[in-house]
Amino acid sequence: MNREIHLNERPTGTPTHEHFKTVESEQPVPQEGEVLVKTLYVSVDPYMRGRMNNVKSYIEPFQLNEPIEGGAVAEVVESKSSDLEEGDIITGMLPWKEFAAVQADRVRKVDPSLGPVTTSLGILGMPGLTAYFGLTDIGTPKEGETIVVSGAAGAVGSTVVQIGKILGCRVVGIAGSDEKITYLKETLGVDEAINYKTENVYQALEAACPNGIDVYFDNVGGEISDAVYPQLNKFARIVQCGAISSYNVPNDKGPRMQTHLIKSSALMKGFTIGDYQDRFQEGFMQLAKWLKEGKLTYEETVTEGFENIPDAFFGLFEGANMGKQIVKVAEPSH
Amino acid sequence: MNREIHLNERPTGTPTHEHFKTVESEQPVPQEGEVLVKTLYVSVDPYMRGRMNNVKSYIEPFQLNEPIEGGAVAEVVESKSSDLEEGDIITGMLPWKEFAAVQADRVRKVDPSLGPVTTSLGILGMPGLTAYFGLTDIGTPKEGETIVVSGAAGAVGSTVVQIGKILGCRVVGIAGSDEKITYLKETLGVDEAINYKTENVYQALEAACPNGIDVYFDNVGGEISDAVYPQLNKFARIVQCGAISSYNVPNDKGPRMQTHLIKSSALMKGFTIGDYQDRFQEGFMQLAKWLKEGKLTYEETVTEGFENIPDAFFGLFEGANMGKQIVKVAEPSH
Repeated sequence: MNREIHLNERPTGTPTHEHFKTVESEQPVPQEGEVLVKTLYVSVDPYMRGRMNNVKSYIEPFQLNEPIEGGAVAEVVESKSSDLEEGDIITGMLPWKEFAAVQADRVRKVDPSLGPVTTSLGILGMPGLTAYFGLTDIGTPKEGETIVVSGAAGAVGSTVVQIGKILGCRVVGIAGSDEKITYLKETLGVDEAINYKTENVYQALEAACPNGIDVYFDNVGGEISDAVYPQLNKFARIVQCGAISSYNVPNDKGPRMQTHLIKSSALMKGFTIGDYQDRFQEGFMQLAKWLKEGKLTYEETVTEGFENIPDAFFGLFEGANMGKQIVKVAEPSH
Repeated sequence: MNREIHLNERPTGTPTHEHFKTVESEQPVPQEGEVLVKTLYVSVDPYMRGRMNNVKSYIEPFQLNEPIEGGAVAEVVESKSSDLEEGDIITGMLPWKEFAAVQADRVRKVDPSLGPVTTSLGILGMPGLTAYFGLTDIGTPKEGETIVVSGAAGAVGSTVVQIGKILGCRVVGIAGSDEKITYLKETLGVDEAINYKTENVYQALEAACPNGIDVYFDNVGGEISDAVYPQLNKFARIVQCGAISSYNVPNDKGPRMQTHLIKSSALMKGFTIGDYQDRFQEGFMQLAKWLKEGKLTYEETVTEGFENIPDAFFGLFEGANMGKQIVKVAEPSH
């Protein structure tokens, strides 16, 4: 038998187990052009919360009583496509199923020589590309400028801070635990790190950014951003990558921030990684190069077991993860 | 005797008469390089509210017990500069004084052949340039796109809507009285106009923008903007020119809007006209050309009397003005 995790109910606030349900199903049979894959690793990402709502967005909402879908790494166990063969490791947007039949042309073969296959869900996947394009294309940091990153110890943020250092900037990371602060300072080499749970973020930023803030890479929104906006330099750039603090709060309210943008002639730009589809190869090559040269590193938080995917997802909103949160579902055959 | 209007006290909310005081002073004597001018017209503008606060911004705060300073048109009555002569009409940032001695190189001579001299405070001055650069450089509208303008009947907004029509866009204006709605539709030629005081702005925008919103030129912020953000098209541009609804509301709060920017990959950019200093001549020439060709028109609301400058200023926050609000202080000599 096979197992799948479906959307059972749409949450209005924080998602819990009642919004998901595990369903048993038949082993799928691949059709011509498809491959049967065994799921090895599942990626849980904050943006998926938005797909649980039934609202128009850049990506279709999840359907009730259908499997959730997200980034995953899987092994081909049976192929009806000339492009892939048994034993190949692939990645793509896959349903939360232990085994799935998927079209071969909708997945990508992973090159295991570039690093552990899980990196295709992290630093060599969507989070890495999100960090790279968001920072370089929207943030456009210049050497010597000050970059502030919220959610700095997460999958995207931990890559952003490192790219910021590669580009010669002063980098200040904001995260929510002492362990993350130590990681940011000692492993990722940020200039300053602020624990938003124990420090006054506004004052800590003032101290950490004596020359003001030129680039704000925002994964979090909420009160952390409220503390950043008044400290923006003239012509600052805000990379609006995420706003995780608002995702589970219907009608989240806060200080209006328009006047801060006017005072500093600042730019604020939202984006999703799909906007850069035509440039994925460029980003991928650059990240792989830095990784190989030892200029980039990464962390993974691995939860074990298919049935624990929802828990790993819930953990994102509590800041439970360091670096990329993944779920290990099965061992590869080889 | 001469009269001056000083900043008496810094307001925290809505400014009132107690925050200003009229002071009598000696007639100033121009020094070498200066001219003695008689103030003819004074411009009151929403951005001046920000200068009443003692906070770091793009422009220095007004000083307590010193004259307020703002855009004005004046006549040279005595010249100690070879650049200007008696009878010349000049414009610049002048103190709120009936007579003032000012450096000749800090003011600009007005060419009366281009139109009434008051246009140098409006359509051929800062508001016109603000409309032109904000819309074309940040809004970057393409033919056929939909532009929404808040504060559409004001000095800046009324120019923006007309430039939008010149560029071949669908233009929807938002304003606060039936008179302004009629003006927008019948004189300025907008496609739709919404009275935010009597209509549900969200629903009215849905009806007025069947293809969504590509450019939002925002002078107002607040609840009007709250209604716009969810209706932005992919890659929309928000020109954050002003946020008058927040200026008199300390700690103004509202729905957090970061997720809307992410969903629509929208850009939001604050600016002040000084950012475009190097391009003033280009903007001025284009506006003068359109004005001459009859493609642009403008409205002025004129208050009479030096002592009524504060009242004219207060009126801005109540939407009392159609088009450019100016105060007539004196008749020119000729």
